[in-house]
Amino acid sequence: MTKPTLTLDEIRKNVSRVDSELLALLAERRQLSIEVAKSKIQTEKPVRDPAREKILLEKLVTAGKKHELDAPYIVSIFHSIIEDSVLIQQAFLQKLANPDSAQPIARVSFLGPKGSYSYLAAKHFFSRKQTTLAELPCKSFKEVVEIVENGRADYGVLPIENTSSGSINDVYDQLQHTRLSIVGEITQPIEHCILTAVDTDLENIDCLYSHPQPYQQCSEYLRSLGDVKQEYCSSTAEAMQKVAEMKSGNVAAIGNASSGALYGLKPLKANIANQQENHTRFILVARNPVDVTDLIPAKTTFIMSTAQDAGSLVECLLVFRNHGINMTKLESRPVLGNPWEEMFYVDVEGNMSSEEMQKVLEELTSLTRYIKVLGCYPIENVSPTEIELD
Amino acid sequence: MTKPTLTLDEIRKNVSRVDSELLALLAERRQLSIEVAKSKIQTEKPVRDPAREKILLEKLVTAGKKHELDAPYIVSIFHSIIEDSVLIQQAFLQKLANPDSAQPIARVSFLGPKGSYSYLAAKHFFSRKQTTLAELPCKSFKEVVEIVENGRADYGVLPIENTSSGSINDVYDQLQHTRLSIVGEITQPIEHCILTAVDTDLENIDCLYSHPQPYQQCSEYLRSLGDVKQEYCSSTAEAMQKVAEMKSGNVAAIGNASSGALYGLKPLKANIANQQENHTRFILVARNPVDVTDLIPAKTTFIMSTAQDAGSLVECLLVFRNHGINMTKLESRPVLGNPWEEMFYVDVEGNMSSEEMQKVLEELTSLTRYIKVLGCYPIENVSPTEIELD
Repeated sequence: MTKPTLTLDEIRKNVSRVDSELLALLAERRQLSIEVAKSKIQTEKPVRDPAREKILLEKLVTAGKKHELDAPYIVSIFHSIIEDSVLIQQAFLQKLANPDSAQPIARVSFLGPKGSYSYLAAKHFFSRKQTTLAELPCKSFKEVVEIVENGRADYGVLPIENTSSGSINDVYDQLQHTRLSIVGEITQPIEHCILTAVDTDLENIDCLYSHPQPYQQCSEYLRSLGDVKQEYCSSTAEAMQKVAEMKSGNVAAIGNASSGALYGLKPLKANIANQQENHTRFILVARNPVDVTDLIPAKTTFIMSTAQDAGSLVECLLVFRNHGINMTKLESRPVLGNPWEEMFYVDVEGNMSSEEMQKVLEELTSLTRYIKVLGCYPIENVSPTEIELD
Repeated sequence: MTKPTLTLDEIRKNVSRVDSELLALLAERRQLSIEVAKSKIQTEKPVRDPAREKILLEKLVTAGKKHELDAPYIVSIFHSIIEDSVLIQQAFLQKLANPDSAQPIARVSFLGPKGSYSYLAAKHFFSRKQTTLAELPCKSFKEVVEIVENGRADYGVLPIENTSSGSINDVYDQLQHTRLSIVGEITQPIEHCILTAVDTDLENIDCLYSHPQPYQQCSEYLRSLGDVKQEYCSSTAEAMQKVAEMKSGNVAAIGNASSGALYGLKPLKANIANQQENHTRFILVARNPVDVTDLIPAKTTFIMSTAQDAGSLVECLLVFRNHGINMTKLESRPVLGNPWEEMFYVDVEGNMSSEEMQKVLEELTSLTRYIKVLGCYPIENVSPTEIELD
C-alpha cells in the first residue's frame, strides 16, 4: 500500500500532463463565459444569477463525491472559476459600453517605485482587461492625480481604504479638489514577508528596512524577534532596493513577496502581519466618467457637505435607506480652511443611470449645501455564492 | 462580434462538460499526490519543496499565456491545487505514522448546536481525512473537554484565537487543567451575513438575532442600518433557529451563510464584518498525543510558568531564538487563585521528536518552575509559494 507504483519521474510527467489539460479547460471555460455574456446582452439578464450558481455548485459537489473529492475543496476551486467568469463577462460588457476607453495600451500613474502595492493593484486591475500597461511611477498621491489631469496618464491608481490602518486621509483630500472621475476599484491583498537577498537564517538578521506602515502592521511578530534595528524608508519598494544592493545575510526588508522577486529578494518568513488578512482597496481615476451597463453591479461614490445641524447627515442617510440603496462606506473629512464644516464621502451600491439613483441625487441635492458624484463604476468584488456543505 | 454563436442552452451544456472534465482531472491529480507522498517515504524528502513549486507555477504561467489566461488567475487556482496536494499528502503520511488513530468514524465534541463555527471547523478539519463524523454538540467548552476526557468522544474542537477579537480566554483556562493533548489545528474563515427565512428587503428588517460577538465584529455595518433592535442569543446557531421558526420578513439572524442553509435561511447581505477577513484558529484535543512524521511541518504548544523576576520570560524566549526555532504565538494568562503568577502559552514551529526541540525542552525545564508540552501536531496552514507576476 505504501510502495509507489510509478517512479517519481513518471508521477511528475503525469502531473504535468494533468496540469496542461487543466489549463486548456480553464481557457475553454473562459471563452464560454464570453459567449454567455453575449447571450445576456440579447436577453438583458444580469451577469450574476446566484440561484443558478447555487444549483451549479451543488451539482459539482455531488459529482465530486463520486471522485472522492470533498465539498470544501470543490467549492473553493469553483468559487475562483466563477469569480473569473463574472469578471471576464464584466470586462467584456464594459468594453462594449465604453468603446472610446478601450485602448490596447493604458498609461497608468501610481505611487512608485515599481513593486509598490499601488503598482501591484494596477497590474491586478488590468490583468483581465487585455490591456498593456505603460507604467508611470510617481512620488506622491498629488502627482498621481496631476498627471492624469494634464493628460500624461490615462488612469491613476490610489489606495483609499486599508483593513488594518483605516482610510488613507491624504487621498480623500486629493479627491475633494479634482475633476477626475472614479472609474473602477480593486481590492489588493497586502502580504508582508521578511525578504532577504541571500540565503540566511532569521537569527542572523540584525537590521530591517521598511516603510513605517508595515512596521506598525507587523508589530507583534517584530517584538518576538527581540533586539533588531529598524531603518525607515519612503516605501517598501525602496527598502527592497536597498536590501538587494547590500547583498548581506544580516539585513532584510519587509514587504510583498512578489514585489521582492522584482528585486531578486526571497521570502525568509511569510505572513508576519498581526492580522492574518490585510487588504487595501484602491480606486482608479480618469478624466472622463464611464458608463456601467445595467447587467452588472455598480457602485457610486458621492462627496457632500450638509447643513451645520446635528440631524442633517442622518437625513441624508435616510434618503438611501428609504430607496433601499445599500451604503458600503461612510467617511467624514474636515474641510481644509473651514474648521466648522465637514465633507462626507459615501459609497453606495447603485448605478447612476437608474431612475432610483436619480431620485436619490435629487433629494440629496435639496438636503445638502454641496454634492458631487465622484464616479459610478463596476463592483469588482465578486462575493462567493454559499451552499450548504452537509 | 457581440452575437453569440451558440444558443444559451448549448453554451451551458459545454460549460457542464468542461466542469465534469475539470473534476475528473482534479481527482486524478489528487491520486498522483498520494503517489508522490509514497515516493517521499522512500526518499525521506519533505512534502513541501518551495523551489520546485516556484518552478511549477512559473511554467504554468508561461503555458497559460498561450491560452490568454492571466497570471494572477492561474496562480490563484494552482495555489488551491497545491494546498490540496500538500494537505492530502500530510493526511496520508500522518495516517501511516499513527495507525491506531485511523478510525473510519470519529466522535467529535464541539460547542453547539449544529451549524456553529466550531461545527464548521470540525467538518473542515476532517474533510480531507476520509473519516465520517459522529457529531457531539456541547453546551460549554468545559463539556467539550470533559467528554473527551471520559472517553465519550475521540476529539474535541476548541476555538483558540480570533483575528478580530483576540484569544479566547476561557479555552486557555481549560487547557491549563486537562491531560488531553493537542493533536491538530484548523483555521476557519468567519463570514458574517444577514440571514432571513423569507425573501425580503433590508429596510423591512426591524429586529436582529445573534450572539454578542458578531454584533461587536459587525458594529460599523450595523450602525449604518440605523434603528434596528438587537436580540442576544447564546450562539449564532440558536439565533438562526429562532429566525427560521418565525418565518417573518421583519427579522434576520447574523451568522455564517453555509450554517444558515442548515436552517433554511438565505443571505440577504454578505460580508458585513468590520474587517473584511476574519478567521478563527481552532485546535483539536484527544486523549493521546500524535506522532508527526518529519516529512511535514509541525507545531508544538508549550505551557510554562517562570520565576517571578522580570527577565525570566525573556530568558525563555531567547532559548527558542538561539536554537533558530520560530515562535508563532505567545499568550499570558493569570493563574487562578494565585494572582502573582502568570502562565505562558507558546506556539513554535518545530517537531518534539527532533534533537533540537529536545534540547530546547531541556533548557526550558531548567529555567521554568513548571513546563508541559500541550501537544505537537501538523501545521495545516499551507502558506502559498509566491512568484514574480511580471
